[in-house]
Parts: sequence; structure tokens; C-alpha cells
Amino acid sequence: MFEILHTNGLARCGRFHTVHGTVETPVFQNVGTLAAIKGGLSAQDLEKNGCQIELSNTYHLHLRPGDKVIKDMGGLHKFMNWNKPILTDSGGFQVFSLAKLRKITEDGVSFNSHIDGRRIFMGPEESMQIQSNLASTIAMAFDECVENPAPYDYVKKSCERTYRWLCRCKIEMDRLNSMEDTINKNQLLFGINQGGTYDDLRINHMKEIAKLDLPGYAIGGLAVGETHEEMYHILDVVLPHAPENKPRYLMGVGTPSNIIEGVARGIDFFDCVMPSRNARHGFIFTWNGTINLMNQKFERDPLPIDPNCGCEACRNYSRAYIRHLFKAKELLAMRLAVIHNLYFYNELAAKIREAIETDTFEQFRQKYSPMLDERIK
Amino acid sequence: MFEILHTNGLARCGRFHTVHGTVETPVFQNVGTLAAIKGGLSAQDLEKNGCQIELSNTYHLHLRPGDKVIKDMGGLHKFMNWNKPILTDSGGFQVFSLAKLRKITEDGVSFNSHIDGRRIFMGPEESMQIQSNLASTIAMAFDECVENPAPYDYVKKSCERTYRWLCRCKIEMDRLNSMEDTINKNQLLFGINQGGTYDDLRINHMKEIAKLDLPGYAIGGLAVGETHEEMYHILDVVLPHAPENKPRYLMGVGTPSNIIEGVARGIDFFDCVMPSRNARHGFIFTWNGTINLMNQKFERDPLPIDPNCGCEACRNYSRAYIRHLFKAKELLAMRLAVIHNLYFYNELAAKIREAIETDTFEQFRQKYSPMLDERIK
Repeated sequence: MFEILHTNGLARCGRFHTVHGTVETPVFQNVGTLAAIKGGLSAQDLEKNGCQIELSNTYHLHLRPGDKVIKDMGGLHKFMNWNKPILTDSGGFQVFSLAKLRKITEDGVSFNSHIDGRRIFMGPEESMQIQSNLASTIAMAFDECVENPAPYDYVKKSCERTYRWLCRCKIEMDRLNSMEDTINKNQLLFGINQGGTYDDLRINHMKEIAKLDLPGYAIGGLAVGETHEEMYHILDVVLPHAPENKPRYLMGVGTPSNIIEGVARGIDFFDCVMPSRNARHGFIFTWNGTINLMNQKFERDPLPIDPNCGCEACRNYSRAYIRHLFKAKELLAMRLAVIHNLYFYNELAAKIREAIETDTFEQFRQKYSPMLDERIK
Repeated sequence: MFEILHTNGLARCGRFHTVHGTVETPVFQNVGTLAAIKGGLSAQDLEKNGCQIELSNTYHLHLRPGDKVIKDMGGLHKFMNWNKPILTDSGGFQVFSLAKLRKITEDGVSFNSHIDGRRIFMGPEESMQIQSNLASTIAMAFDECVENPAPYDYVKKSCERTYRWLCRCKIEMDRLNSMEDTINKNQLLFGINQGGTYDDLRINHMKEIAKLDLPGYAIGGLAVGETHEEMYHILDVVLPHAPENKPRYLMGVGTPSNIIEGVARGIDFFDCVMPSRNARHGFIFTWNGTINLMNQKFERDPLPIDPNCGCEACRNYSRAYIRHLFKAKELLAMRLAVIHNLYFYNELAAKIREAIETDTFEQFRQKYSPMLDERIK
């Protein structure tokens, strides 16, 4: 299911085969929270933008339009007209970051919807049932995402419960995949490593979940309060204990530099709302660093956002035009900027794969890792 | 410059040749107020959507980003990357509908910007200069647009001044077209008929402006307070006095039925924000009448918005999906709905042309004119 084609240091490039097609790794997953990409992009736009795998959010889709509506419409792929792989998160992260008045027990979590306040219960079984209704390619385990830093004892207990929840997820996923009316009977379950910033908890937890022989493993609970250095340290200590022949997914990360550094440590999958969120505020990634399109200096700039970019925005429009659209609050501004930033991230992953294949990843890293997150002077 | 290819009753189909290409008439102009179509559509989207001619607003572009910026960027065509004809209105309508504290004199109009309140003066010469900077294909004369109903004496005086302003517009446009650094030296000036709801004022004004032998004539000051019947009556009385061999443009109109009825009376050009504005609120035009996509009954509806439509939204997405996007406030909802409604209006114009060419316009009118504006039961 996962082939490693080539390694260069700890970095690897590979192919992950699914019923919805093959993903070339390392890969950046494009986030379409509510089955659409914020900024007005459709699945067809993602296709044109070089996206290989789309990520949608279980918590959000459970609330709106409801996973049963999506199941009745034939699943997420048909609903949003996207034929390539889709990963759904478990809802765990949103329950812990968006929902109000939550109460955790061994069973799961009770919380109030952030939309209408109604009381909802979600545990491992419910999360798997929702994701099965959505019929994504990859379902994520239901876990507790603890913010960093957190007390050792709390993280330890949370980790142990997350492990027990993972076992329940696996059992429920197997049951759902064998049901007659399940849309995607080949839905894959990825486990999630937790343990905060504590080396021993991270390592022990990874060793435990590795034994379950799941089709993929994620590193969760990072990019939630710790420094980049702490994040890289955790990757350094935990990845040697992750199964080598399974894809490794660093959840919710990150900047271009974070992605390069993650790959350097053996990560294969990434996702982040940063490229689309930044774009909607005029913050743009280029191969020379970042720019703010709102800047006065772009008022009469006839160049594309990035002269080295092949995206729809850069092939057709000037900085001056897109800046005008931002100032005039035209929605097209956000659309073009999001198209550009996602294209940039997809191209970043493609260039990383190429560098690994040609054994030049370290040079690539040294050239781009310090530069891509920095504002152009 | 304008060829009439075929007539069917008073309806005519023709070709209007310009330096930016040929427009097949009757035509619906797609409105891109600020050099972008509201709802997140680009010039490239218009191209795919069957749009022949785009309309932008002089008043808005003068305020943001400024017509001098657009001139420095090579004109509106280059700025927004649209190579087909562009019509710019004169700013007159917006000065009278949006601007605050306006004061009219023989010279022109002083007013406060609706954005930052700064005092601006615009008269016939300024309007022509701004439109010359924008370098549109067709510039509209600077006129006073009087709301209906208005006192006879006021409308009469306003009409006479609008005539004098038109003469000044013509002189200034000729001067600008002969200037070395003018981008489009072939810019065309259309005159605008006014006269409120008074037959004699309308007829006299049209007779006067017809003598100036302009490349096109618009009927202005309609759809600003009067009933549809009053509007049709004015068209009935004034169009026999409009030059037969020049295109006739009914400004700011209207519903699908208004367009069919306008064509039936000899109109060739239309424009209206209605299809895009309605779309942004979920109100959709179809060949069976209108629908409100927010309606609960579409929650699980797998059909496209209009099964008879070939637009990007209808080829790819269900009513259920687009309804979900509206409920979830995803920008993609507006984009898809605007694409559909503009495609519908462009197709309406195409079907009208076909009906005229095949001498079946009256049957077309009887079938569609009563139906297209009505909500489907």
C-alpha cells in the first residue's frame, strides 16, 4: 500500500496507493474544511492547482450539512465532485479547540456546538461512524489533542486514554467497513501519536500504537503552543519508533520551512490552513520569501505575484490588479491569492520529491528552509 | 460598424464591430463594477461563461484604484486581462445614486465620495478624460439620471442640460482620441436619451441627440422608479425616433422578461447587476423560472441547479451541495451561483438571437416572457 521509492538521509519519497488513486509523497494536503476551499475554490480548482489529496473536517461536516446528508448524497467524493483521495480528521482537534463546555470521560467527549449550542457527544465510535458516512479515503483516529505545555501527569493519562480510544476506533472501523451499506468499505484508519513535549511519553505511545499495524501514523499535538525547536526535537526522538514502511503525517503543520524540516526528519504527509488563511489577508508565499500584497509599493507593479510561478493568478494577473481587488474588497482577490498560495505549497512538495529523488535534498533544504518563511526586504 | 443581419418584427439581430472584436446583438453585458465580477469571477471566468462584452463603472474606478493607475497599467483591458469589448458608464448614474451632498451646475456635478467623503467634481470633460484613461471600447455620455416620477419642468430643464453636456462630451472625446498618449484612439461615444416618463420630452431629446450621428444610443433613466408598463411605453414611443442603423442600449435593465420585451421593441444592448446580485443571495434563474437555493427542499437534491444548463456549476455540482455552501457561508456558493446566473443571461441573449434569425422570436417571447421571472411553484 505504501512504497518507498527513494531515500535521501532521513527524507523519503514514496507512493501511497488507495482506492481513490495514488498519492506521491511527501505531500501537502489542501484543506477544504466544509467540503469547499475557503476563498471560493472548488474541487475542480484544486485539480488544476496540482492538489493530490484534499482534507475535510469531521466536526464541521457533522454539524453542517450533517454526515447523514452527505452519506445520502453518495459520500464526500460525490458531494463535492472530487475523485482523488480525501482525508478526514477525527473531529478531536476541533472538539478541543472550537467546542464549548466540553466534558471528557472514558467514553468520549460531550460538548456544545459552536454554531447553535446544542449538546453533542462524540467518542471513538461516533467519530468512526461519521467518517464512514463521509466515506473519506483515510479516517483519522479520535484522540485528545492537549495544548503545549501541559502537566506531565495529565498528558500521561490523556495518552493512555487516547491509546484505548484508538483500539476502539480500530474495532469500530473494521465493523463499519464490513457493513453492507458502507460507501467506502476500504476506508483506512491512521493512528495518532500524542505525548505533548515529553520524550518518554511520545516514544512509549508511538511504540504502543505501532503494534496495531495501522496503514499510517500521524504525529498529533504539535504546532499547538510549543516552539519550532521543540517540535523538531519531538520529531527527532519519536520518528525512529514509527513504523518505517508506513506513511507518517505531521498534523496541522505548517510554514514552508516547517515542511522542509519535517521532511528532513522523515515525514511524508502535511496539512495546514496557513496558505489559504494567509492568502485571504494578502500574505503571499513566493520562491524568494513572503510578501504582503496590500503594500503601497505594489500599486503600479505590473509583475505577477511570483514571476517564477505557473498558477492561474500568476499566469493572468499583476500584483497591481490583485492589490486593487484586495483594497476594493472584491472576492476575486481572495480567490486568486488562495489559488497562488496553495499552488505554491503543492509545488513545494513536488520540488521536495524531486530533490529527494535526485539526492539533492540537503542542498534544497539549505537554500530554501531559511528563506521561504521570511518577508522579502 | 453596426450591421443588422436580420429583423423579426421590431426585434433585430446584428453585429457591432469594434477594435476589440465583434459583439453579436442582442447582447447582455456582464457587469464588473470594479474591474472584477462580484462573487469572485475573473475575466477568464467570463470568457468561459459566454460573455461577449464586459461593463465597468467609471465612478467606482475613478475612486479605486484611480483611472490614472489603470492608465499607467496599460488600460482596463490589460489591467483585468480581458481582450473583448468593454463598455464604461459615464459615472453619471452613480453620482446621482451613491454620492453625497451633490451640487449640479451647468459645468457639472460636485459631490462627496461615498468612500472617504472627499470632494470631487465631475462634468462631461472629466468623465470623458476618466473613460479615456480607462481606455474602454465604448464610453457613455455624462448625463443626469432623474428618478421617476419627477416634475415635468425639472425633467425638461435637465434634458436640455444633458443635451448640452452630450455636445461637450463629443468634443472632448474627439480631442482625447487625437492625443498622442491616448491608449484607445478609437474609443466610441454612445449618447443617452433622457426625458423621464414624458413622451414629448423623450421624443424631442432623442431627435436632438440623433442628429449628432454617434456610434450608438442608449435609453437612460428607466428602471429608476417607474412600472414595467411605463418603461415599455417609453420604449414604444421613443425607439421609432432612434437611428435605425445604430445599436440601441437599454441601460440597467433588467429581468429576463424585461430583456425579451426590450428586444421585442428594438433594443440591442442590455446590462444589469440583477443576475449577479440575486445569485449572491441564492436567487437563481432557470429555464423554468426562478428558485431560492436556500430552500429546505433542496437539502438532498442531487440535480444540478438547472438540468438544462451547461454552466460550470451545473456541469459539476448538485443543488444539495451549493445549498450547503450557502448555509455554511462558503464563498464558493456565491461564485457558483453567479457563474450560473450570468451564464443563463448570456444564453438567454444567444437564444433570443437564434429566435430572431429563424423568425420565431414571437413564439419565443410568448413561451418565455411570462415564465422566466416567476418563482417555480
